[in-house]
Amino acid sequence: MNYLDKVLFHLPDIYDCSVRQWYVMNEHINMCEGAVAEAGMEAHTFFLNLMVILLTARVFAEVAARLQVPAVIGELLAGVVLGPSLLGWLAPTEAIHLLAEIGIILLLFEVGLETDVTRLIATGAKSFLVATVGFVLPFVFGFTASYFFFDLALLTSLFVGGTLTATSIGITVRVLTDLQRQHSHEAQVVLGAAVLDDVMGVVLLAMLYEFYVGGGISYVNAGKVILFVGVFFLLAPLVAKLISLLIKHFDEVTQIPGMIPTAIVSLVLFFAWLAHVIGAPELLGGFAAGLALSRRFFLPFGMAISTHPGFGRKIEGQMKPIIHLFTPIFFVTVGLSLNLREIDWSSAFIWIFSLSAFILAVLGKLLGGLIIREGGPRGVVIGLAMVPRGEVGLIFAELGRVSGILNSEVHAAMIIVIVLTTFLPPFIIKWMYRRYPDALPVDGDAKR
Amino acid sequence: MNYLDKVLFHLPDIYDCSVRQWYVMNEHINMCEGAVAEAGMEAHTFFLNLMVILLTARVFAEVAARLQVPAVIGELLAGVVLGPSLLGWLAPTEAIHLLAEIGIILLLFEVGLETDVTRLIATGAKSFLVATVGFVLPFVFGFTASYFFFDLALLTSLFVGGTLTATSIGITVRVLTDLQRQHSHEAQVVLGAAVLDDVMGVVLLAMLYEFYVGGGISYVNAGKVILFVGVFFLLAPLVAKLISLLIKHFDEVTQIPGMIPTAIVSLVLFFAWLAHVIGAPELLGGFAAGLALSRRFFLPFGMAISTHPGFGRKIEGQMKPIIHLFTPIFFVTVGLSLNLREIDWSSAFIWIFSLSAFILAVLGKLLGGLIIREGGPRGVVIGLAMVPRGEVGLIFAELGRVSGILNSEVHAAMIIVIVLTTFLPPFIIKWMYRRYPDALPVDGDAKR
Repeated sequence: MNYLDKVLFHLPDIYDCSVRQWYVMNEHINMCEGAVAEAGMEAHTFFLNLMVILLTARVFAEVAARLQVPAVIGELLAGVVLGPSLLGWLAPTEAIHLLAEIGIILLLFEVGLETDVTRLIATGAKSFLVATVGFVLPFVFGFTASYFFFDLALLTSLFVGGTLTATSIGITVRVLTDLQRQHSHEAQVVLGAAVLDDVMGVVLLAMLYEFYVGGGISYVNAGKVILFVGVFFLLAPLVAKLISLLIKHFDEVTQIPGMIPTAIVSLVLFFAWLAHVIGAPELLGGFAAGLALSRRFFLPFGMAISTHPGFGRKIEGQMKPIIHLFTPIFFVTVGLSLNLREIDWSSAFIWIFSLSAFILAVLGKLLGGLIIREGGPRGVVIGLAMVPRGEVGLIFAELGRVSGILNSEVHAAMIIVIVLTTFLPPFIIKWMYRRYPDALPVDGDAKR
Repeated sequence: MNYLDKVLFHLPDIYDCSVRQWYVMNEHINMCEGAVAEAGMEAHTFFLNLMVILLTARVFAEVAARLQVPAVIGELLAGVVLGPSLLGWLAPTEAIHLLAEIGIILLLFEVGLETDVTRLIATGAKSFLVATVGFVLPFVFGFTASYFFFDLALLTSLFVGGTLTATSIGITVRVLTDLQRQHSHEAQVVLGAAVLDDVMGVVLLAMLYEFYVGGGISYVNAGKVILFVGVFFLLAPLVAKLISLLIKHFDEVTQIPGMIPTAIVSLVLFFAWLAHVIGAPELLGGFAAGLALSRRFFLPFGMAISTHPGFGRKIEGQMKPIIHLFTPIFFVTVGLSLNLREIDWSSAFIWIFSLSAFILAVLGKLLGGLIIREGGPRGVVIGLAMVPRGEVGLIFAELGRVSGILNSEVHAAMIIVIVLTTFLPPFIIKWMYRRYPDALPVDGDAKR
């Protein structure tokens, strides 16, 4: 609101801090945002911040690509550089956070759009094994080391284990896309495993918190979440497919431009919301919507809902610019959320504990990849692709810190583990692909 | 942040109101947002709200189009229905407000993109007359009526006059686009006039506030703003054009998709920010960027920077989905900002005052349109197109209310004037086009 900003400049007395505070203290807590919005939270500052995020992400991604490094590493680094770790220019405000959330669900939507459901189901059993082993082992390793070797408290040890279980589906997917292996066989297995890992993560976090609050655990609740998520994944793509037929119809008869972007983004947002309501991670809602609209989506039992390749291409053509606009915001925000300055680099405990945890974190996921006996290089790549903890690990660690379960040293160690697991595997995966070109062809299908 | 929401659900004690209040009261005020962001301000609620806004806007726009009414009326009504006036389902939060702001600057970018600079300059003198007369008369009329006939205070009367001067460039432009007259001669005149009106509005608001604070007015400051804006409008398109050549170069060499949406949106955000810094309305920054990238942009003095029609089409193809996604958010937000329930409909003063002000508001703009002697129907359409006050009037009125310059009755009357001026003219313009098809051809150029 440019006029408003102008006046705020001229007359700070009208809407000042005290007004906002008054709102926050006396009214419903939501009024806090309301007040800031009413006061015309400086739009031009937001524009500048958003521009800096978009441009820095792009420049770092381009440099990364020139250096033969996955572009996503550049985007994460852009956040680290702009954020409190280095320059301290930007803090992720609420609005940026929400745009980042849209970015990640749109990315998962795009992944779903390019996923072949038949192949996903075909590799389902392998994905399940990779996910389960790669989830249980890091948890057990992390807990055991913390509890028995580092003498941490029971709850702290459980939380360290929990932090090590997370896989960042967004980073995993982007790394494989940057290396142009998103359609390979190993990418298929990893995708399914990362989806399952996210679900298990939600269940584990809920259980840990129940334990923290009540001292006990309800397996019924955990079972309910798993059941809901299962039903969601069976039904959501069918519902989304039916809605997409409606969208196609209206797109043909409307006179107002912009039907596809508005309708498809609404659909994705709706499914993200629905996923949350049901107890699943929001980004899986975006994934389910993408699956349904995929040109390779076929209904079971031979039910014939004809797919329209022309419409599919139209959706891709109009949605890609939107997706490409939003997704870098997400990765930059992950980098912004890191604060490497907070870490006391002189503490011996932090070094020893974080390096042990890092080794266990990699080992657990790696064994998950190797268990399915895909042949050495492919198993290693699958395991490595599951290693990045990214934003999911950060949320675990942040909750542990705020609730007092993780003290500052353990928290700092977790941050180091998250940084190492996020930034190192892409390089090794890239090296694996160059080292074993025969075992890991560009189009994984050729070798199946 | 889905994990976080989950935990918030299970353990409200960690991040509760008191934590947020503590932040607000003890830390820098910006921490308020920070805290909300850290607490993972419920992303799923935001998704649902955004989806409801997008879908309702679309449904109302479609119904409006079927009823042969400009679609923008539907989008505004969607906001009125969802907002406090009727259902009270949605309040415009900070994030929604910021998305709406992006929507309006992107809309102005699109308008600039489709504007022929040569023609804009050719109709410049007419636009200047329309803007000046349509600015001065409503101000004088509004002030005179308030001060002499309704016995309001001096500052209140000045503020009423100020509220009546505003023209909502966004609504004006959308109405003509919905009627497919955005390339007509009258649209050209109106566009230039609306841009000038926005600049005058900023200057007036700054002057009124100086008067309010200090009791006097500095003409030097007002002159400085006008000078800056003039320089901005001369230089910005040239700079943007040079940047666009850079973007074109990088778009050709990059290996990472998404160059155009990120680079162009960054450019638009940057110019919106720059406009604000210079003292101009932000949306004029978007307009300047659009002008520069227009396929009809030619530099003065015969300077040859070749325009690339292919690149222009690529920009349009990739930017349109983004523009169409964001702009409805703006118009819905305008509707959401209205609260028709606040008005005491039984007050005789409100009725008499608002109807008088409405007549003067229309008359002032109408005379502005008629002064350039374009022939009856065209002059009337130009005048009517300048009538909608929309969000610009709302900002004036809201500031008047918060600062205590407008009491609740006068404020309510202003809201009624804004609603009438926003919703009525589109119908009359539409009717004019149907009544005088010969004087107002679809392609205005044919008649020139």
